[in-house]
Amino acid sequence: MAQPQSWEKRAEEYSFYGFTDLPSVHQRGTVVVTHGEGPYIFDTNGKRYLDANSGLWNMVAGFDHQGLIEAAKAQYDRFPGYHAFFGRMSDQTVMLSEKLIEVSPFERGKVFYTNSGSEANDTMVKMLWFLGGSEGQPQKRKILTRWNSYHGVTAVSASMTGKPYNEVFGLPLDGFIHVGSPHYWRFGEEGETEEQFTARLARELEEVITREGADTIAGFFAEPVIGAGGVIPPSKGYFQAIQKVLKKHGIPLIADEVICGFGRTGNTWGCQTYDFIPDAIISSKNLTAGMFPMGAVILGPELADRLDAAVEAIEEFPHGFTASGHPVGSAIALKAIDVVMNEGLADNVKRLAPRMEQGLREIMERSNHIGELRGVGYMWALEACLDPATKTPFDGDLSVSERIANTCTDMGLICRPLGQSIVLCPPFVLTEPQMDEMFDKLEQALNKVFAEVA
Amino acid sequence: MAQPQSWEKRAEEYSFYGFTDLPSVHQRGTVVVTHGEGPYIFDTNGKRYLDANSGLWNMVAGFDHQGLIEAAKAQYDRFPGYHAFFGRMSDQTVMLSEKLIEVSPFERGKVFYTNSGSEANDTMVKMLWFLGGSEGQPQKRKILTRWNSYHGVTAVSASMTGKPYNEVFGLPLDGFIHVGSPHYWRFGEEGETEEQFTARLARELEEVITREGADTIAGFFAEPVIGAGGVIPPSKGYFQAIQKVLKKHGIPLIADEVICGFGRTGNTWGCQTYDFIPDAIISSKNLTAGMFPMGAVILGPELADRLDAAVEAIEEFPHGFTASGHPVGSAIALKAIDVVMNEGLADNVKRLAPRMEQGLREIMERSNHIGELRGVGYMWALEACLDPATKTPFDGDLSVSERIANTCTDMGLICRPLGQSIVLCPPFVLTEPQMDEMFDKLEQALNKVFAEVA
Repeated sequence: MAQPQSWEKRAEEYSFYGFTDLPSVHQRGTVVVTHGEGPYIFDTNGKRYLDANSGLWNMVAGFDHQGLIEAAKAQYDRFPGYHAFFGRMSDQTVMLSEKLIEVSPFERGKVFYTNSGSEANDTMVKMLWFLGGSEGQPQKRKILTRWNSYHGVTAVSASMTGKPYNEVFGLPLDGFIHVGSPHYWRFGEEGETEEQFTARLARELEEVITREGADTIAGFFAEPVIGAGGVIPPSKGYFQAIQKVLKKHGIPLIADEVICGFGRTGNTWGCQTYDFIPDAIISSKNLTAGMFPMGAVILGPELADRLDAAVEAIEEFPHGFTASGHPVGSAIALKAIDVVMNEGLADNVKRLAPRMEQGLREIMERSNHIGELRGVGYMWALEACLDPATKTPFDGDLSVSERIANTCTDMGLICRPLGQSIVLCPPFVLTEPQMDEMFDKLEQALNKVFAEVA
Repeated sequence: MAQPQSWEKRAEEYSFYGFTDLPSVHQRGTVVVTHGEGPYIFDTNGKRYLDANSGLWNMVAGFDHQGLIEAAKAQYDRFPGYHAFFGRMSDQTVMLSEKLIEVSPFERGKVFYTNSGSEANDTMVKMLWFLGGSEGQPQKRKILTRWNSYHGVTAVSASMTGKPYNEVFGLPLDGFIHVGSPHYWRFGEEGETEEQFTARLARELEEVITREGADTIAGFFAEPVIGAGGVIPPSKGYFQAIQKVLKKHGIPLIADEVICGFGRTGNTWGCQTYDFIPDAIISSKNLTAGMFPMGAVILGPELADRLDAAVEAIEEFPHGFTASGHPVGSAIALKAIDVVMNEGLADNVKRLAPRMEQGLREIMERSNHIGELRGVGYMWALEACLDPATKTPFDGDLSVSERIANTCTDMGLICRPLGQSIVLCPPFVLTEPQMDEMFDKLEQALNKVFAEVA
């Protein structure tokens, strides 16, 4: 096999790219990354980038955190792999489950491991389907999520994801229903207050439940802050309003904390930031600070008890992934929880979030084409707009957010285009000078692109 | 939170167990594993077990392989995490894709990464659905697999899995069709030769395709040797016969090599052992020797070209997992492929497979209750039978294989009960004295349990 010469050509020859704008790759080439330092990554040409995307929200401790690296290496020396089937599991797995319940909002509960957030959501759906069947309600299979939410890419978790791009797969599957997104700036009606908007979403949920039949609905999944939908914090009182409707109909509320969990919003959980207690939590990403693929379903007391009873009746829950509860992932997660929650990373987010908001607000105020700044903690989005006053977007053919992101990349700043917004979700280790570097490069890129397109 | 004292109690308090016989756990307690040496693991009581299950088929280099551990640690020092979205990926990922195509049976092709075999099968199904839609055949969605096959546990990969236990989830989903299993000993009819049996399965496949309509079928997935169905090698000429039928109808043949791939059958791929070239390969488990969660879809030239064309038309393939192509997983896989294929592990399997077969055959011949010995390489099963002459199974309530496996565990040997068979799939590093230890303990356990139940 003749070997193409450059790293870029080798990447393109053998990789089937996912979530990648192919015209950009054809024009600009692949960025092949070799190493990192704090929030920076370096490519094969030695170019340095401030990754204000934290990898994919997940590398919250940066790209060379020594404590995490040492924890990983120590566990490889101690015990480099095992499963959690057949009543056997590693000691690290036992300790992690205990820790997860300790730091959860639940007084007690049970943990089930997967390798990703997609698998964890898929698992939770299977658990709910299993519960319906075992409790004499096999028709209780429909899953409610919101438009513009993101829950993963397995066929089922992609069906939960409220994005039009899943149509290319013939998804969603039947029985996956998307209700409204709590994005007041975009979907609030003329003259409607934020509180009225929230009340309208709760009424809409009630109508959907009535239309579909409460006894056909297995669960409602929601990200505390919608992440890959472009950082959408809930409208005021949203979770209180919808949880009331769900409780009335006996429908579990599952918090997909894959992005929010472990510090992104400044607290351990997004549900703490928005003051509600879900029936179960889906965790991944920050769980291992991106240093190992791991997901977890964390069941609160009621779901844990009902599932335990259902499983005892058939003697075995026929589900599990080979690397579920991997000892190295468990050891890294134990350390990551400690590093993020007890070694100052979440504190850093809490302390500097107002500075981040303020810096971005100033950028918005100096620009004529930012319609909204939204976010919390270390997750923010600037919404590009042709005319902020009328909330008129740019022509889609201009690919305005991709141009901004590519311009940032040229300048050594990685941020993420989502719709017409630019998302910034830096590692929690981001310092004040690094934050200023982010502001400076971002503003230069915005000015350059807006001058071209507006 | 009061902490229960023993490791066992702590495990049971916080874990929701998967693929675990709960009556056994209640009676015997959880085995909490701390470390390993070669093919042995050790629990918190210091008890040693020869793990003839290789963890879950995957720890093929044993539980403390220094070369693999050093490769993992070196990559943690170099670059401990990144993704493969947005036209960026790590150098390790680029090298691994190049290597996977080099060692594949394909002259060229493309690689897409996941975190597990479940995700890889789920991804392949989404790719086939996407291909159908983009090629003007959106009705081409049905997936064919075999009864007793195992393809994973996401809702879609569980729908592919041909096991009755998935009924508890209300699975399979619509459009997942299971055809016959090529287990001649069990399903061959009175007076039917193995060749006639194979021809019958090919005719049955032809009939199913005709009944369903070839233009509604997206793909056929098969493990070269059915693994978690109890180690079922194909009947003579099976893949040649069915591939002929599939080719006639333009249906891709996907080899699920999660268990067989990288040495388990003695060759790199199971499809080499059974002399066929599939259209794509699903890999996981041995890919990283169990030391990191990773799966891969390896597309052969035709599927790679068709998918490339389909994706170029929409500019982006909207699919991918956060940890797809993780640099540490990629570095471990690069080393694992080298260790297994070039440092004597696959050679060890080839050299000692006849010894393993011979030892198990002698055990069968000395017993009155083994109906069949089947397998290849380092994957074998002994089928327990009340009466081997008539192939009459034991009463299901006796849980004969679970009793054998539990008796083995007591003696420090881990093997796996599957149906009424006992599966042995040791790490490739298993030496001759360790193989003899496995034979001795297994035979003692068989004799003890058969004396109790027969």
